[in-house]
Amino acid sequence: QSAAPAKAAQCFTCHGADGIAKMPDAPNLAGQNESYLVKALEDFRSGRRENEVMTLMAKPLSDEDIRQLAAYYNGIAIEVKKK
Amino acid sequence: QSAAPAKAAQCFTCHGADGIAKMPDAPNLAGQNESYLVKALEDFRSGRRENEVMTLMAKPLSDEDIRQLAAYYNGIAIEVKKK
Repeated sequence: QSAAPAKAAQCFTCHGADGIAKMPDAPNLAGQNESYLVKALEDFRSGRRENEVMTLMAKPLSDEDIRQLAAYYNGIAIEVKKK
Repeated sequence: QSAAPAKAAQCFTCHGADGIAKMPDAPNLAGQNESYLVKALEDFRSGRRENEVMTLMAKPLSDEDIRQLAAYYNGIAIEVKKK
């Protein structure tokens, strides 16, 4: 994994540094689609999408922060376990 | 993986039967948090959350459909690849 962006620490509480959710209602982010993550963060920042926690988290993020956070979590490689 | 619910086929086009996104803007769903998936589908169905495709997909789903789809994708085991 690439080094986590400065503002990633606040994400780890719920989403984990490894992108596997640590809170029941938080989604896993490991290996998630980068454009999906960018859109989610932009929508939480603009208010187009609402969530008590994420609206607060996203408000102060710059476009560059959003780009780096999306790249960080997308960069965590996952694989589907063979049956 | 448990057998896919009847209505899952329409999801496979973008999200894949294995939960790894087949379309650039669609999120991976493999191993995703069940309550997160239920909430996302409910919000797309109620209009609390908007997306051109998902609003159409979610409209006809029953609560039971939503429960089964969330369980199906949550049931696909994933792991973070060790560095």
